[in-house]
Amino acid sequence: MREVAIIGVGLTPFGELWEKSMRDLLVEAGLAAIQDAGVDHIDSMYVGCMSSGLFVGQEHLGAVMADYLGRCPVPATRVESACASGGAAVRAGFFEVASGNADIVLVGGVEKMTDVGGDEATYALATAADQEWEAFNGATFPGLYAMMAVAHMHRYGTTREQLAAVAVKNHANGSLNPRAQFRGRITVEDVLGSVMVADPLHILDCSPITDGAAALVLCPAEMARRPGRKPPVRIIGSGQASDSIALHSRPDLTELKAVTTAAGKAYKMAGKKPSDIQLCEVHDCFTIAEIMVTEALGFVEKGKGGPAVQSGETALGGRIPVNTSGGLKSKGHPVGATGVAQIVEIVEQLRGEAGQRQVRGARVGMTENMGGTGASAVVHIMEAVS
Amino acid sequence: MREVAIIGVGLTPFGELWEKSMRDLLVEAGLAAIQDAGVDHIDSMYVGCMSSGLFVGQEHLGAVMADYLGRCPVPATRVESACASGGAAVRAGFFEVASGNADIVLVGGVEKMTDVGGDEATYALATAADQEWEAFNGATFPGLYAMMAVAHMHRYGTTREQLAAVAVKNHANGSLNPRAQFRGRITVEDVLGSVMVADPLHILDCSPITDGAAALVLCPAEMARRPGRKPPVRIIGSGQASDSIALHSRPDLTELKAVTTAAGKAYKMAGKKPSDIQLCEVHDCFTIAEIMVTEALGFVEKGKGGPAVQSGETALGGRIPVNTSGGLKSKGHPVGATGVAQIVEIVEQLRGEAGQRQVRGARVGMTENMGGTGASAVVHIMEAVS
Repeated sequence: MREVAIIGVGLTPFGELWEKSMRDLLVEAGLAAIQDAGVDHIDSMYVGCMSSGLFVGQEHLGAVMADYLGRCPVPATRVESACASGGAAVRAGFFEVASGNADIVLVGGVEKMTDVGGDEATYALATAADQEWEAFNGATFPGLYAMMAVAHMHRYGTTREQLAAVAVKNHANGSLNPRAQFRGRITVEDVLGSVMVADPLHILDCSPITDGAAALVLCPAEMARRPGRKPPVRIIGSGQASDSIALHSRPDLTELKAVTTAAGKAYKMAGKKPSDIQLCEVHDCFTIAEIMVTEALGFVEKGKGGPAVQSGETALGGRIPVNTSGGLKSKGHPVGATGVAQIVEIVEQLRGEAGQRQVRGARVGMTENMGGTGASAVVHIMEAVS
Repeated sequence: MREVAIIGVGLTPFGELWEKSMRDLLVEAGLAAIQDAGVDHIDSMYVGCMSSGLFVGQEHLGAVMADYLGRCPVPATRVESACASGGAAVRAGFFEVASGNADIVLVGGVEKMTDVGGDEATYALATAADQEWEAFNGATFPGLYAMMAVAHMHRYGTTREQLAAVAVKNHANGSLNPRAQFRGRITVEDVLGSVMVADPLHILDCSPITDGAAALVLCPAEMARRPGRKPPVRIIGSGQASDSIALHSRPDLTELKAVTTAAGKAYKMAGKKPSDIQLCEVHDCFTIAEIMVTEALGFVEKGKGGPAVQSGETALGGRIPVNTSGGLKSKGHPVGATGVAQIVEIVEQLRGEAGQRQVRGARVGMTENMGGTGASAVVHIMEAVS
């Protein structure tokens, strides 16, 4: 396999962007990444998107992307793995560069979620669960993650306050991110006092409905350095795994086995272990998810995710900063864009461009992107090229 | 790049399969391909599907596939390029094997289209066109391809009877295919006497709404031969290209530029030219599409696609047999499955397993899979391993 590097990144602001269409967002992020990389041609494109068919009535997003970026006849393909669509799109681009078929590959991720009403958005998101056994019977994601939270609280003594601490930390990080959807700091009391969505999860435990896009440019590591270009970042590990689509099929609701398996593959490819990772963007679609993911990635022992966030281990300046961008919770969660945006944050950190949320001396970072209740997981490890 | 071979194929019957769910179909085709290949493990999976969100309310199809095949935690990703989703999924699997990351890759394609009514199916299919400029304003695919047909008739003198000849030929081929949706032979008079859908296209110029799935197993060519396994088929060329998502953005409605570009790349990778191809499965979603595609692939001169089909050049036993399976027109068109099913037909032909529709001495075959009005095109060239 050829080694692969990231040479450019682009990100739109995240939020309720009613004045911008899905294709506007995709073009804005794509052009930013192309400009950042300083490339004059593209060999191939991928775009991660979960459900543009249900959200805006447009499938065939690869062709839309190539067309609106003025790049026809460059091949362009959409990749979908629910909320892990962005990470899976990066992985598809990674393989095409690694195979030697393409040198310069643009990978985008997008979701335009606010053009439909709340009921329609909830329906669209529930298509990431098991339609026949979960969604059809009325289960939606807050309810499914609430069951995981109850199981984790029961088995490990995880507390309501520990769940709230995830939201408090990520809003604090997001307050330092100019592109975040919510930049206001919140307190544990704010979370506990906010409206209940699915017991024990309050609305401030949930990531929002968001419009946004992200993009990055990949190329072979040996071609990545060029005068005038920012230092490249190598993708040194990529792992993906699946788990049962339905939550009730799993022997243990407190485990994210696909995350552990995907991370194991990424660690092995990278030749790294959890203690080598200096910062990580994880898929905090709900506060309980971040707690379970930090355990599944091996940053803390099983059952210790709650105490770790409460004691500041995963805060900026802590032992292993998690979600410096603000995470899905505060930065926002345009589902198809999220996996790409996580990598954009790591690249900016490894370049030393993260401003007030910079992790000092960061050389190795990780992303964990997840679909459904963890039925798909994609993990990437990135390293600054010295 | 590592060389890649196909070592197993599977295909469900195509038709209105009300007794089978989408996941049933995917599992049936997947298990058939695994059994045909005789493999005891899988490293990675891809599934091509256009719009399971709109057709059956289920996105996140990769996880569904891994789960229902009993293969978790194997990574599984959905690929979407409208009606070219199947071809694009094969290409994604091809790159992962070529890169060296995976050895045994299962690629599926599926669409379950008959669980919704006609209006909903038409809406779902129209999401492959430009939502903002075509679908929103009422254009659907029969109308868009009708415009292409009128332009082709006007410029090249292509006749109504030549369009009908495509349907007549493909139904004759499909009558020999036990898995085809429509196995009845038809005449030119039948086509011309059938109900008008969008002038000049009658209903017998249009491919049907279909349920079905297809699958194949890829591995490195060097690992493909094994005692007891059928002879492998190598993928010697893979090309993909894009064109404007909207038909009206193109300078010439009679040209499929993405098809020509994708074919050029596949020919170059394979070291072959059009006259080396002994049979081809093309994307005859409408009769005019087959005529335009045979021109774009270089089998006939520009404007000569109509006379070629009328004179029998593309019939079984002709100079270059096209759509020996019956094509989308007679075999059926479960959109996400089509691109994979086309390759299944070529593999069966190159193995000498095509029964009454066998092309004698076939060693090199091609597939052309297309999305929208040709905004995406994926071309593969396969060769029997001697």
